[in-house]
Amino acid sequence: MSQPLHSLTAVEAAMRIAGGTITAETLVRSCLERIEAREPDVGAWTFIDRDGAIAAARAIDRQPGSGLLRGIPIGVKDVVETAGMPTGYGSLIYHTHRPMADAVCVTQSRAAGAIVLGKTVSTEFAFRRAGKTSNPHDRRYSPGGSSSGSAAAVADTMVPLAIGTQTGGSVIRPASYCGVYGLKPSFNLLSLSGVRHLAESFDTLGCMARTLDDVVLYRAALLGIAHRPLPRDVAAPRLGFCRTPFWEEAQPAMRAMVEESVARLAAAGATVSDFAIADDGRAVLDACWVINKFEGARLFAYDAMHHPDGISSAARQLVEEGSAIPLDAYFAAVRTVDRMRMRLDADLVDIDALVTPSAPGEPPLGLTDTGPIPFNVLWTAAHTPALSVPAGKGPNGLPLGLQLVGRRFDDDRLLHAARWVERALGLVR
Amino acid sequence: MSQPLHSLTAVEAAMRIAGGTITAETLVRSCLERIEAREPDVGAWTFIDRDGAIAAARAIDRQPGSGLLRGIPIGVKDVVETAGMPTGYGSLIYHTHRPMADAVCVTQSRAAGAIVLGKTVSTEFAFRRAGKTSNPHDRRYSPGGSSSGSAAAVADTMVPLAIGTQTGGSVIRPASYCGVYGLKPSFNLLSLSGVRHLAESFDTLGCMARTLDDVVLYRAALLGIAHRPLPRDVAAPRLGFCRTPFWEEAQPAMRAMVEESVARLAAAGATVSDFAIADDGRAVLDACWVINKFEGARLFAYDAMHHPDGISSAARQLVEEGSAIPLDAYFAAVRTVDRMRMRLDADLVDIDALVTPSAPGEPPLGLTDTGPIPFNVLWTAAHTPALSVPAGKGPNGLPLGLQLVGRRFDDDRLLHAARWVERALGLVR
Repeated sequence: MSQPLHSLTAVEAAMRIAGGTITAETLVRSCLERIEAREPDVGAWTFIDRDGAIAAARAIDRQPGSGLLRGIPIGVKDVVETAGMPTGYGSLIYHTHRPMADAVCVTQSRAAGAIVLGKTVSTEFAFRRAGKTSNPHDRRYSPGGSSSGSAAAVADTMVPLAIGTQTGGSVIRPASYCGVYGLKPSFNLLSLSGVRHLAESFDTLGCMARTLDDVVLYRAALLGIAHRPLPRDVAAPRLGFCRTPFWEEAQPAMRAMVEESVARLAAAGATVSDFAIADDGRAVLDACWVINKFEGARLFAYDAMHHPDGISSAARQLVEEGSAIPLDAYFAAVRTVDRMRMRLDADLVDIDALVTPSAPGEPPLGLTDTGPIPFNVLWTAAHTPALSVPAGKGPNGLPLGLQLVGRRFDDDRLLHAARWVERALGLVR
Repeated sequence: MSQPLHSLTAVEAAMRIAGGTITAETLVRSCLERIEAREPDVGAWTFIDRDGAIAAARAIDRQPGSGLLRGIPIGVKDVVETAGMPTGYGSLIYHTHRPMADAVCVTQSRAAGAIVLGKTVSTEFAFRRAGKTSNPHDRRYSPGGSSSGSAAAVADTMVPLAIGTQTGGSVIRPASYCGVYGLKPSFNLLSLSGVRHLAESFDTLGCMARTLDDVVLYRAALLGIAHRPLPRDVAAPRLGFCRTPFWEEAQPAMRAMVEESVARLAAAGATVSDFAIADDGRAVLDACWVINKFEGARLFAYDAMHHPDGISSAARQLVEEGSAIPLDAYFAAVRTVDRMRMRLDADLVDIDALVTPSAPGEPPLGLTDTGPIPFNVLWTAAHTPALSVPAGKGPNGLPLGLQLVGRRFDDDRLLHAARWVERALGLVR
């Protein structure tokens, strides 16, 4: 029996559509069937545009074209604005909101021929309050957040690609928990215009996929640049093993997976050195939290004022705590993070990728806690590109992600290193 | 005869309202009358919310309260989203657009008690195509752009305060041309959430007023912090005289005004040194333009695709040129600007303010060209705070602005230096 279409990678599906062996419509219908079958268990979506997606697929099938994502179904996190589709920001307040225009990332996706199947579940305003999504590997566990639905939908082969956003760890952590690839590029490499903000200093647009090749394809489409697939063979990279100051907070299985991976990568020919963050990691983490509160408070102010009953207590608390932060404390925090960013920029010149945990370990039990963020915040604040590679399983059989972190504005170097790493670890043929 | 209410500063008006000697309604009506009388000549507004403003004023007069801007009328640039008021982004496409929520800066203004009189003219998407606004000092001349209406409305005493945005020189230059104070704070100090982007790396929210004290008051309201008025007497600052690499492009009257100001400031006791930008200014300017095009192209892509007849040829050209920029060139430009930003950060540690032109000189004749930006772009890209101080007149009797530039995230130091400067130059009593 042949592989069901919904489980094709984006690269495979795009090739088959371009070659005329499948139509966009059959692919879209296969994904919609998968969603119909699995959505009651997974709960990845806030809105499914069944008719719109089939119509868009038919339009593509009728007309020749050359977009990178011609006919490829995608999921779009609900904090991202979409014309003609609800955009609720994961909040109770905005369920009637239908923006006049697509966010830039949706514009670029559609311009490349992608078909938006619908909106994926986000935590409220990409902050704390979790949505309905469960982990597709075991529905008792969290999919992670805030890009919960995007990670779960990709992991469950409902769509090959999905858009996420990260302010703390909202792309890398759910990617780790759901066992998919998650890319958080350098800050502002992908436009956030049309996306709800949580903390402007950190908010970063990213994407999820089931293979590295798909990540590279989607990134090219989102950037509107030519697609240059990663070569099969790349030079052995210079890696830094970064335990981070939070190593003891990682689960034993995660520590073991990362340590074994590092050993195998060194044995396979990578240059591996220990890498310690020069700054006081906990002080930077505290500074990040000051910035997140200060900026989050002003971003939530309108809703706290006009819809006090529509926001969660976590959001209300952010407004209260953030509004109390003195300007001097905010500036000091900004300077602290800025120093770390510059230092990392210098310290990563000769390192192609840091190797570090994507998350503390397996996802938390239950659907209210989307998991801790210390293994993500520093890299988000540093504006460095980061990639979660599904690289192992924990004692409950749930995924563990290996995080690769590159130098700021050196995203291509990171992706090449990732190609070598996934082959050296035997994660792909 | 007493001073008409519409020409009161925000500080004066707020004191009178708080003291009960005038009502918010009489102030609002006075401003509306001024607008009615002068708008046919000035053309500062795209929308005037006469009834809403009077209703808001009455509501304020009925209830005691303590906001910093209680009853103070403001103008909001049309690229800024306002609930219940049109938000056209200066474009032909969005004239029917009525956002579901206020932008953060409007939320903060209203929370402080400000009354939004309406939306002020912006160039199309804060880019090139000029609106209808003329310079209130002489209607044959440009008010500058892109915050044309905000600068003109404040200069013409239609409102004491207005919001602007700057990507190249869109706050400082119109402030200079219209003879008002314009503040462009450090990057991201004021939230841009709910504001149309032109280039995310540079876009900065600012404000205009007719006095420095009003700038300081409005900034406190926008930040949601306590208002600490500048003291009358501050220590003599350490100033850097920065001609910039574009000095020869300034008009003789501007060069003379800046040179004379520097001499008078030195004579009055300021420490003044010559300050040269360590980087190649023209190379940085070129890099800024690469970034502006790359980011602008993606930001305009939706409208270029869906409303090709609704955008100007300048906007179309930005999309075409920006889409052709290779990713490597963008990254190189980002790194060039980043280096300059870091170097300036180091070089300004012991300087309270640079003194430099706000614009090449008097505004251009005619309403299609809003003026050149070389005296603004570097500071916007450097993320440094900048203030335009109305400090002279040119041969046509039109305003000349003196630009003061501070260190990134050191906005308070700049404002204190500005207080000393305006007193030393005899611009205030």
